[in-house]
Amino acid sequence: MSPQPVRVALLGAGTVGAAVARRLDDRAQRYAAQLGRPLELVGVAVRDASRDRPGVDPSLLTTDAEALVDRADVVVEVMGGLEPARALIERAMRRGAHVVTANKQLIAQQGDELHALADECGVGLDYEAAVMAAVPVLAVVRESLAGDRITAISGIVNGSTNFVLDMVARRGVPFQDAVRQAGELGYLEADPTEDLEGLDAAAKIVILARTAWGRPVTLADVQRTGINGLTDEDFAHAAAAGQVIKLVASAWCSGSGEDCRVELAVRPVGLPQDDPLAQAREGANVLIIEAESAGRLRLHGAGAGGEETASAVLGDVLRAARRR
Amino acid sequence: MSPQPVRVALLGAGTVGAAVARRLDDRAQRYAAQLGRPLELVGVAVRDASRDRPGVDPSLLTTDAEALVDRADVVVEVMGGLEPARALIERAMRRGAHVVTANKQLIAQQGDELHALADECGVGLDYEAAVMAAVPVLAVVRESLAGDRITAISGIVNGSTNFVLDMVARRGVPFQDAVRQAGELGYLEADPTEDLEGLDAAAKIVILARTAWGRPVTLADVQRTGINGLTDEDFAHAAAAGQVIKLVASAWCSGSGEDCRVELAVRPVGLPQDDPLAQAREGANVLIIEAESAGRLRLHGAGAGGEETASAVLGDVLRAARRR
Repeated sequence: MSPQPVRVALLGAGTVGAAVARRLDDRAQRYAAQLGRPLELVGVAVRDASRDRPGVDPSLLTTDAEALVDRADVVVEVMGGLEPARALIERAMRRGAHVVTANKQLIAQQGDELHALADECGVGLDYEAAVMAAVPVLAVVRESLAGDRITAISGIVNGSTNFVLDMVARRGVPFQDAVRQAGELGYLEADPTEDLEGLDAAAKIVILARTAWGRPVTLADVQRTGINGLTDEDFAHAAAAGQVIKLVASAWCSGSGEDCRVELAVRPVGLPQDDPLAQAREGANVLIIEAESAGRLRLHGAGAGGEETASAVLGDVLRAARRR
Repeated sequence: MSPQPVRVALLGAGTVGAAVARRLDDRAQRYAAQLGRPLELVGVAVRDASRDRPGVDPSLLTTDAEALVDRADVVVEVMGGLEPARALIERAMRRGAHVVTANKQLIAQQGDELHALADECGVGLDYEAAVMAAVPVLAVVRESLAGDRITAISGIVNGSTNFVLDMVARRGVPFQDAVRQAGELGYLEADPTEDLEGLDAAAKIVILARTAWGRPVTLADVQRTGINGLTDEDFAHAAAAGQVIKLVASAWCSGSGEDCRVELAVRPVGLPQDDPLAQAREGANVLIIEAESAGRLRLHGAGAGGEETASAVLGDVLRAARRR
């Protein structure tokens, strides 16, 4: 008898979902060898099953997400938005499926409730892709530094705004032109509010802080200033002072020992040219983690993109499959 | 009834061992909370139990390493060298204890045999600290990128030689003087051969390559050139060409798909000033991992030091304790 496959359901077939589907197909043999049994994509839930999705087998498309969830061992949510993503994740957990998601707003807003439910149902809940795509910051904070004491985290966690700021700083493009060009190049959404106001970065720093210190911090705890209020004068002043303006997300545990108080901020900061965060070019992300024993660790990579996000999703899928 | 403690045995009380012992003591409460039961250091095996070890409770010292191993759930080997480290690790595994080690030469030379034994005994074998201390490169390669396809790894993985090369490049110190000063500052061992000839870097790149591609590569597969043959003329030439000489360890899987051929090298390379590897200052380590989906990830941090290495050892100890 050949071993039972691990049945994977995919919710969403946007750029991330399509990349995950393609890789589950073209790396199938290797995954089966790694796990000792195949990972089988049993369906892809979409709103419109008649639309063509390059690389995704059309026979796998379904509009019945609930029925799909009910026949999966691992549910991968890459549809985004709060609902129906949350309800489908809850349904998956109650039926004993492990959940992998890339949904940062959902985890930032309801991560604690979802973790409690995952524990109650005895299933895994992983979301490495929700923060900095393929840069494995959550695993490092949660596992590699589990024996250490993290004191501070800071970084550039939003590639879209970094692209804009880098265009202004290095190419001298006026700020509003840079925002427009970033939109045309696909670096900003049609509604760029979430990026420009720092909401995307805030969600990520909340998830990082919860992972690092296990405290129930929320988006409301973030002292948040976006880049949308910046003017060309601000950039000129920074340049004259030899500085680069970056949107920095930071979290630190102030006060001593285990009872430290977690503080969170997202704001534009003028940094010296040789600061490690000032080095982030275009859409790059970089995170600095400071820990009592490890000192200062720096992780750098692409913080967005369908393939890059799929790398983190697939790492979590293999983790979930090993749990079964 | 209070829960049974996880009994930890420490083999070795040098700079790393002493730091691990201190942290097991001062973070005891937090570890107990994380695990749901205490981590108890039951003994520290040393060659000379009469020597004072700052921060280590003298009543824990013992010269009978075998008896200590026999009463532990997790054995932490930080004594270094091939024997008796190997024999003690084998003994621990056969008695059902998980093993954590920082011993890069042992893992590079006998990692496959030790993994086979660990599987046979149903125990864990972890050694994050063996490569780049607290920079969590093995976890990233093995777990975070498990669903991706790693194509190449390169980096500066030996802080001692980087310290020497950085002194020459940035402070203009003649090469032989820099070697001498690095020795006086404790950056090089009394016998610096392992660092200067690239043997230390070779062991690390072998471990990384095995972790990335699961092939039985050995130290003999590494095309190795140390920095000991460099002359001040070489440095002058590099500087004139706007380059920085770094000792680069690299591994890549050439050829396509799953049947690629692993190649390994350690050698001094002239790099442009703005190359990410050229940025490594003093004793810093940096690793670049290239993967098909994730693109290029960069990890940067202190690659040596008692506290920094202890951070990685303790992360592995918690991982091992969770396995029980």
